[in-house]
Order: sequence, then structure tokens, then C-alpha cells
Amino acid sequence: MLTKPALSALHSILGDRVSVAAAILSEHAQSESLVSGGSPDAVAFPRTTAEVAALAAWSTAHRVPLIGWGAGTSLEGHALAVAGGVVVDFRDMAAVIEVRPEDRLVRVQPGLTREALNRELRTTGLMFSVDPGANASLGGMAATRASGTTAVRYGTMRDNVRGLEVVLAGGEVIHTGTGAPKTAAGYDLTALFVGSEGTLGLITELTLKLHGQPEAVMTAVAAFPTVGAAVDCVIATMQMGLTPARIEFLDIDTVAACNAYSQLSLPLAPQLLVEFHGHPEGLAEDVARFRTLAADFGAEGLDWAERQEDRTRLWAARHAAYRAILASRPGAKAVVTDVCVPISALAQAVEETRADIAASGIPGPILGHVGDGNFHAILMVDPARPEEAVTAKALATRMAQRSLRLGGTITGEHGVGFGKLGLMQAEHGAGWQVMGAVKAALDPLNLMNPGKVVPGQG
Amino acid sequence: MLTKPALSALHSILGDRVSVAAAILSEHAQSESLVSGGSPDAVAFPRTTAEVAALAAWSTAHRVPLIGWGAGTSLEGHALAVAGGVVVDFRDMAAVIEVRPEDRLVRVQPGLTREALNRELRTTGLMFSVDPGANASLGGMAATRASGTTAVRYGTMRDNVRGLEVVLAGGEVIHTGTGAPKTAAGYDLTALFVGSEGTLGLITELTLKLHGQPEAVMTAVAAFPTVGAAVDCVIATMQMGLTPARIEFLDIDTVAACNAYSQLSLPLAPQLLVEFHGHPEGLAEDVARFRTLAADFGAEGLDWAERQEDRTRLWAARHAAYRAILASRPGAKAVVTDVCVPISALAQAVEETRADIAASGIPGPILGHVGDGNFHAILMVDPARPEEAVTAKALATRMAQRSLRLGGTITGEHGVGFGKLGLMQAEHGAGWQVMGAVKAALDPLNLMNPGKVVPGQG
Repeated sequence: MLTKPALSALHSILGDRVSVAAAILSEHAQSESLVSGGSPDAVAFPRTTAEVAALAAWSTAHRVPLIGWGAGTSLEGHALAVAGGVVVDFRDMAAVIEVRPEDRLVRVQPGLTREALNRELRTTGLMFSVDPGANASLGGMAATRASGTTAVRYGTMRDNVRGLEVVLAGGEVIHTGTGAPKTAAGYDLTALFVGSEGTLGLITELTLKLHGQPEAVMTAVAAFPTVGAAVDCVIATMQMGLTPARIEFLDIDTVAACNAYSQLSLPLAPQLLVEFHGHPEGLAEDVARFRTLAADFGAEGLDWAERQEDRTRLWAARHAAYRAILASRPGAKAVVTDVCVPISALAQAVEETRADIAASGIPGPILGHVGDGNFHAILMVDPARPEEAVTAKALATRMAQRSLRLGGTITGEHGVGFGKLGLMQAEHGAGWQVMGAVKAALDPLNLMNPGKVVPGQG
Repeated sequence: MLTKPALSALHSILGDRVSVAAAILSEHAQSESLVSGGSPDAVAFPRTTAEVAALAAWSTAHRVPLIGWGAGTSLEGHALAVAGGVVVDFRDMAAVIEVRPEDRLVRVQPGLTREALNRELRTTGLMFSVDPGANASLGGMAATRASGTTAVRYGTMRDNVRGLEVVLAGGEVIHTGTGAPKTAAGYDLTALFVGSEGTLGLITELTLKLHGQPEAVMTAVAAFPTVGAAVDCVIATMQMGLTPARIEFLDIDTVAACNAYSQLSLPLAPQLLVEFHGHPEGLAEDVARFRTLAADFGAEGLDWAERQEDRTRLWAARHAAYRAILASRPGAKAVVTDVCVPISALAQAVEETRADIAASGIPGPILGHVGDGNFHAILMVDPARPEEAVTAKALATRMAQRSLRLGGTITGEHGVGFGKLGLMQAEHGAGWQVMGAVKAALDPLNLMNPGKVVPGQG
């Protein structure tokens, strides 16, 4: 609960763009996954960096936490006010500030969504590549080091954020990065803030890399006789140095859910959904090579979508897969897992996970960005049966532990939030304490998204 | 000067692999550039991470600085013991630990050089891409966030280090990164240590990304009527989305020096040295497009080197350019500059720099990795005429300031060391203090390569 002087000071910064209305607070206490807990004491809607800086100074003066909020699409509770405080909703800071086509850069505000950015870019011949599925905000995507379907070719947010403006605890504003394509000028603060999930400061502006829209695009669906064959085909594809723009795995349950939800008629088999980008000549060669590989692994009906509308339909279905899977068990809530392993361990990781899920009795379709070794099981639980959530969370923990055993990570792209806090020590050992030391140095009062990412927040 | 107990404790860690011999100390007080100053009190030659950890514990106990040393090829005094202390020479930690071809990864010790690594990889079909010219150590390259000719396609050390083992101040050993292709599990400590120049800890092991050796390679030299035409051709190449594996600019003075030093007979004109990698079909298309572009900008004698030995000869000459330029003014020492600007500002940056150098009377051939906006002027001064060094340093400072004015960075790839310490505030503003806060959090006694990178070291 905010004190009266604190709330009054908050109003003097933002006027009526502060809300303590129950409906607004409740809207900002929601999560798309089963991770839940905490409600903000107020929600702020700043319009400028100066206002965010004033908020940070206010936060320090009144010892009230600040929690950034983009589109609310994160899956590990990143934006939940687990220790109370003020949620800073960036919906009114959602502008494209400057497109610099000659440098393939764009400057944006953090509340802008990736889809809105790409709409703005449509006529420039350029695109922003990172595509986590959800229409997330770009500030949130940077904060969580998001990636998604196209990371296998174009990289994650780690690779596509050139620079940031950040408001630090206390209100200082810094600018990280450079307009040049590379720099060796000191510590890589951009990389430090990308993936810091709002625990080191609030991102108020981003300079993002753009890529040329591909001249030619080929998308195919391939049905494989077994999960192992599909995964082995991905491994061979990556090891041969082919660089698909996307290469997605869907298991039978995911295919069935997508067929039902998106009116597709894919054969009920493990599928790869693959896309190549390039100029026409190079593309033809990539496609020919992939065709041969897929046949080697027993793919049937390798079906190339030549028309834009067919491609759009396929990727729309892929992006709707999470909703499709949820719809396959009406009323269910999801425990979403997000392991990522070395390519060499992908088949083992998927097979062991499938066996574990099958033994648990919880429905858990698997899909993923397998070119990166990243896959998700969507574990669906009936909220009325709390024992299912317990089983699902234990499954998720075993998946993360298996990933670590195989040399991988507990989260490929969703981030830590507080949902994965309990697994950080196992992944990082003493490195986790180093993260804590960095946090303490930049935010000694622990006011920036407390309860997340670093040690001692449980 | 080390105290007797300190030296005795050092010997008890490393036996006779500690030297205080004048010749060894002097060898480790050298720099390849004009940046100079400081001599170590001792040089240590550890063989294991445990020994490095013991050194770090010793350093804390006796309050003696530690300075990492790889191949001694850095250009900003990174490895110079400006505050005394012990230089940790990694020459005995130079093994390839494990090649993992299926994951395109290799684990190496920090003293291994990039050329030695690529010799080991030759039969695997894989290569390590980062190529700064000098046969630097991989630990040093990570510490300085090195890049070089191939970064335009394959990235810098930022992009090619997957994980690190680091000995922190005090002796704790941490492991950063993951074997998976991506992760969202907390702060990006790998990126924090890459480019930290040994000021946050000593790198004792690296996991590096490998790339497939290209199936086909095409290298060409193109002579342009003017510097502006050559640079504009680079800008157009990058903006059209062609991705050369290398695209290097050499001005007339550099061409003359290379002709003399490497027995070439390139026409005396501004040149681009360009290379494409790919599979044969895609490559033919890239080459055709570049040929058209180069012709548009007036290139004459676009000369494709089809044979491996011709390519090797050209790149050997490019790599020898620094020595060739130095040889063009016998006895000279170099002030090496390293600005990097947005591609859109490249022509202006090069032209203004040329005019500035011409007006100064100091010989300063220009060359660079222009696909990244990165170029160097090698300002040659007569050590017997101290006023030349003053003029050259003023020129270098103006180049860095010009780069900042144009949205670029003071150093594209050479790093800060102490040579560029005075320019950090101008580039980073309050962000530089953040770097200082991170340093203080991880190395509160300032024992890890003191005098470099962060504020308050002057």
C-alpha cells in the first residue's frame, strides 16, 4: 500500500496517469501462464523518459519498487509485482522514433510491439526479425532476451539490440551501445541489460537492428515417421550448415491441436515446419539440399507452400499453437516449459521428455524452435485439481534438470522471472552470486523488479 | 616490488614457473604500439585453472595486481603492468580441450592462438572465424572483444564466445554461458567478461563457436578511381544485403606499402579486397551482384582470384599491411587508430580523416574493415622527434571525437586499455560510472588489471 505522501508525489509526476483502480490493478496482476502472485499498489503510464526517471527518483525516495510492463505476454511472472510497488506500463511510450534504413537500424520506444514495428517497416524493404510468437512489446522482448522462430537464422534479442536508453534505480539515465556496427569500448552494458528483466533498470528506448526482407521465401511442411526421425533431420540440417530462417518441430498432439484450432489438415505425424530465405538462386540450392535430407530421414509429403497466403496460414497456425493446445483441454491452465540443449543432445532430450510426460498422465504436447535446440512442452492442468499442478511443476523441474545434465539451459527464451528462480543456482553455481553482486551494485535498495532473477529474492 | 613473503608464497604456488629475471620482465613490458608504461614485478606461467585461482587468492592476500598476458599483440597497452604486479602469461595453457563438431563448438585454453586452433580444426570441416590479423591468443581476443576482417559476416568475439571459465578476484572460479545455442537464464555474464580486458577476472577457458569451412570462396581486388567511390561501393554492398565474408579498404599509401613489402603489383589506387563464402550456386549470384555494383562505382580490373594460392597471397599481404606500413618509414613507431562509425557516415569519416592527416604532415595510411564501418589510420612517428608523437596523438583524439560526433565509437576492435581511457567519458557519459560500479562490485580491491577501462584509474 502506498502512503498518502507517496501517492501524492506520484500524482505530481504523472497527473492522472496513475491508477489505483481495482480493475487496472487486477489487469496488471495477470499472467498468461500458471505463474502468479502479487498485485501492484498502483499502475503508472509515463509518456517520456524524463517521467520514468522521475518515477525512479520517486521510487528511491519512497522505497517503493518499480516493475516494468510491456504487453503482459511473458510466461514466468516477470511483470508481476510480487513485492508490491508500482507497475510502469509503457503503453503510452510506443512510438517509432527514427528509421535509419541506410544503417539498418530503428529507434523505438519500449511499449511498441514487434507487429506494429513491422507494419511501420513494410514499405522500407526492411524487417525486424525477432518473433517470439506473441505480439510482445520490444522493451519486454529486450528485457527477457526473447527469441522465437527466426532466431536460428537472425539471432535473438541478444543479437538484435544495438543500444539502449535505460533509467537506473535512483533516476540516472544512461545510453548504452553505439550506432556503429561493433565496438570494443568497455563493458558490454547493452548485453548486460538485455535479459536483466527490469532488475537493473527500466528500458526507455531501444536501437534495434533490421534485416532486409528476403527476396524469396520457401516454406514447407514435412511429416516424419517418428519424433526421432524429425529431430535427427533437424540435427543433420544444422550440422550441414544449412541456415533455415525457421525450423519448427510439432509433435502429433500439437499437430492435432493446430488442425482443430486453425482448420488445417496436416497428416497426424511429427512435423517439421521449415522456411528458407534468400535470393532465388541460393534458395533453390538450400531447398534442394533440405529436400534430400528430409527424404533421407523418411519424410513424406514434403509440401512446399509457394503462395504467400499458404505461408501466412501455416505460420499463423504455428503462432496460434499455444492457444490451440490450450483449447484442446478446455479450461486448462498451462505450465509452459522452455528447455534448450546442445543440438547433439536434442533427440535424447525430446525422447526422454516425451516418456516422462507420458508416464505422468498430464497432457503435454511438445513443439519448439529445434534448430536452436529449444523446445517447449505445454503441460495442461485442470485448475480445479491442484495435484495436477504439482505433478506438472515436478515434470517441468525434471525437464530443466535434464537440460542441465545434457549441457543445456533451464530457459532458452522465456527467461527467469520468479518461475525459474529456484533453478538458477543449479545452472550457474557461483556465477549466480556474481549476478547478485552486479544487481546490488546497480540497485542497492532492490527497488527494480525485486523478487526476480538474482539470489536472495525468494 | 614484491615483498619477500609474497614472492615466497608465489613460488610455493608455481614452483619455478615464476620469473623475476630482467629479460622476462622486460619482454612483458613491451607493446606493439606507441602505448607504453609499467613493468611487472614478476611473471607467472600457470598450467591449470587451479593455479590461476591460487594466484588470485594470493593477489588478494598480498594486495598485488594480476595482469593477463596472451600473445602480447594488443595495441592499447591492455597487458602492461601500469601499477606493477604480476603478469599472468598463459603460454602454458594453450591446449584444445575438446572439439565438438556435432555442436560446432570447441573448448580451448586461453593461451591458444587463433592460427593454432585453425590448424587443429583443418580436417574437421570447421573453422574459427574471428581474424584480427595478428596471431593473437584466444583468451586475449575474448578479453578485448577482438574482431577483424571476417566480422562483417561471422561476427566479433561478442558473437563467437559461447561460454567462459573465469577466475575472479579472490580466486572464485565461475562458468558462464551454456552448451545450448541460446539461453535466457539471467544476466549475460559471458558478454560482460568479453571485452572486460581482464579487469573483472582472468579467463581460464573458452567455449567458442565454429563455422563450417565454406564450400566455395571467391576473392577479388577492385581498384576504384577515388576513396569516395570505394567507400560508397562498400556502403551500397552492405545496404543491398550482400554479406561478404570480408570487405577491406586500402588507401593508395597502404597499397604502395603492401606492394613493396609483399611483392604485389596492385595498381596504385584505392582498393577493395573482397571475399564471398558460400555454396557454389549462391556464390555465383553474390559475385555477379558485387561485380555490377563495383562497376557502378567505377571499379576497374575487378580481379577474381580463383586459385587458393592467389587468395592466400592476397590475405597474407593484407595481414602484413601493418608491418608493411611500418616498413615504409623505417624506424617509425605507430599510433594506431581504430574508429568505427555507422555505415551511413563512413565516407564522411574517411574523407575528413584523410584531410586531417594530410594537413598534419604525419604519414598515416588508412585501411580497414569497412563493411563494419571500422577503419584504422596508422600514424607513423619518428621516436627521435617527440613532437611528432604529440601531433599524432592529437590526430588520433580528433578521429575518435569525429567518430563520436558521427554516432560511432572510439574503438571498433582494439579496445580501451589505458590508451583510450581518456575518451571513455565522452563515449559513455554516465554509463562509464556504471562500468565502474560493476568493476567495484566484482573487484573491490582493484587488483584485476588496474589502470584500465573503468573510471578513476588515471
